[in-house]
Amino acid sequence: MPTLVKALSVADAGAPFRTTTIERRDLGATDVLIDIAYVGVCHSDVHFVRNDWGFSTYPMVPGHEITGVVAAVGTAVTRHAVGDPVAVGNLIDSCRECRNCRAGREQYCQRGSVGTYNSVDRDGVPTSGGYSQKIVVDQDFVLKLPPSLNIAAAAPLLCAGITMYSALRHWRVGPDSRVAIAGMGGLGHLGVKLAAAMGAQVSVISRTSANAWDAKRFGAVCHYALDDDTTLTALAGRFDLIISTVSATSDTAPLLNLLDTDGTLVMAGAPVEPLSAPVGLLIGGHRSLAGTSIGGIAETQEMLDFCAEHRITAEVEIIPATGIEQAFARLDAADVHYRLVIDAATFADL
Amino acid sequence: MPTLVKALSVADAGAPFRTTTIERRDLGATDVLIDIAYVGVCHSDVHFVRNDWGFSTYPMVPGHEITGVVAAVGTAVTRHAVGDPVAVGNLIDSCRECRNCRAGREQYCQRGSVGTYNSVDRDGVPTSGGYSQKIVVDQDFVLKLPPSLNIAAAAPLLCAGITMYSALRHWRVGPDSRVAIAGMGGLGHLGVKLAAAMGAQVSVISRTSANAWDAKRFGAVCHYALDDDTTLTALAGRFDLIISTVSATSDTAPLLNLLDTDGTLVMAGAPVEPLSAPVGLLIGGHRSLAGTSIGGIAETQEMLDFCAEHRITAEVEIIPATGIEQAFARLDAADVHYRLVIDAATFADL
Repeated sequence: MPTLVKALSVADAGAPFRTTTIERRDLGATDVLIDIAYVGVCHSDVHFVRNDWGFSTYPMVPGHEITGVVAAVGTAVTRHAVGDPVAVGNLIDSCRECRNCRAGREQYCQRGSVGTYNSVDRDGVPTSGGYSQKIVVDQDFVLKLPPSLNIAAAAPLLCAGITMYSALRHWRVGPDSRVAIAGMGGLGHLGVKLAAAMGAQVSVISRTSANAWDAKRFGAVCHYALDDDTTLTALAGRFDLIISTVSATSDTAPLLNLLDTDGTLVMAGAPVEPLSAPVGLLIGGHRSLAGTSIGGIAETQEMLDFCAEHRITAEVEIIPATGIEQAFARLDAADVHYRLVIDAATFADL
Repeated sequence: MPTLVKALSVADAGAPFRTTTIERRDLGATDVLIDIAYVGVCHSDVHFVRNDWGFSTYPMVPGHEITGVVAAVGTAVTRHAVGDPVAVGNLIDSCRECRNCRAGREQYCQRGSVGTYNSVDRDGVPTSGGYSQKIVVDQDFVLKLPPSLNIAAAAPLLCAGITMYSALRHWRVGPDSRVAIAGMGGLGHLGVKLAAAMGAQVSVISRTSANAWDAKRFGAVCHYALDDDTTLTALAGRFDLIISTVSATSDTAPLLNLLDTDGTLVMAGAPVEPLSAPVGLLIGGHRSLAGTSIGGIAETQEMLDFCAEHRITAEVEIIPATGIEQAFARLDAADVHYRLVIDAATFADL
């Protein structure tokens, strides 16, 4: 028998959230049923709900920053047991056979990985995300949540955290690295904490100096505000790696110019317009412009363990399920410090 | 006493070449006087002459693909002797003290390297390039030309060759690499030869199939023509590294889409308009867009030695100094296979 659970769903691009009931499939042999505890409100949820990227499918139940507790397991489940704290991120399956999957990089599955929502599962059923009471996921795509991590504040690690962690690791950030994080929202503030824990000299570049104190608190050594005209000239050639979490502008020139020789600007934010990059800034300083996505399952587990070791979680504000429209409005207004997380117990009140 | 030599000079942006006489400085202790034998007509000479990049200075004597023979040496010269075949590329000096110079990467000198032309030497004198009979260069910036290399066909190695070599080495091209060279002109044809010599599987992507046979002759295993509508779809996700030598288009999307996960598109060509890159192509495939310049002095010597070992030179057509305007017109018309090289003996006839 499928499990019926309450969820928040949108019927079409930009439509308001409605309370709905969705089916979670009967447990297969390797499936895990998770009682969702918390789910982060990721900025990409807003983009998906509004079809900003042009590939949204409806009806849609968003949510891919999920923490919870195992409620039941299939007959062949070996990795998880009832009562375990667990987590689910953006991926719930992949082909498991292609070169990228075999290399533990399911996020780049050559046949297309299965997203936690806005995707189609391997059984042909559209996927529904974590804005709901429970979810069923194959055991191989369920992460072990270290018990020392606060189960609410850990939820944003599953998308925002792994996105930053994967980029920092790929570009080999360590004690000698001069790293800048551009934009200090949900992604950015975790980027600061993670890079600092890796020993890097972390700077934050943001629109104003409003969050300068927070930046230092998260581990940054410097904070630069773009409303100070001297910032962009003073910082020229200063960084080895800049991770931009900003999606408001597609002009990469101001940030490229802050890179030293061989430096890389990594886009974690996704502007809708094509990026613009003067070739002279790439050629002259041997610079690169790159994009980064989430991590694979093994790397996501590694990130959670790293966060437990370094006591890193997100700065969260817990909201009830009924607050979702207001939450989206606050994301639009950039009035979030630094991640809203839905208390999944409140789905019962819908 | 300075040496007076004939040269080809332009007085202003887009002005015609005139015969002129320029001074080469009296030999300092570490200077080498070179009788120029051949000088390549690089496409960047055209851009500099016309001030396409906005930082040209006049009067200008272009030319930075120089081969020749040592005619005289300063009192402290130890690296070169009269009669040695030698070569000079884009660089004739740098600060020698900054981090990049100390790392042998003089092309990224943090105080600005001294270009062979369109630059200002450390003594404050504007530099004049190889479209002339002789040149004086500090011994540390004079390359040893392996005697087995044809002295005419080797000239283009000094800019086109090292540009491609440096990129292929930086992105670790080897026997397993799937490399595409986009555009097969002066740079591109050397890229094919060099990548093939490194053991890569080399493909050429060009406008039409006109040079397909040449591509195979230079070592490519495949040739793809963009006037075949199926090319861009058939090649999606196929390459680890694409080096674009094309400056006609700033839209990088068609080439980015041909990269496999983690692939890099390196721009060796320099479109005037800012590059355009959809962020989704970078994020989705963990791809990078990079720029590359020439190499440092040590790497340029390494390249010349590699070319001698693998018997690589450019495909050249030798022209007289009087043919320079026609040469530029043929570059405009893309009617060059694959590099024009001025016989410097003909400067005497001007």
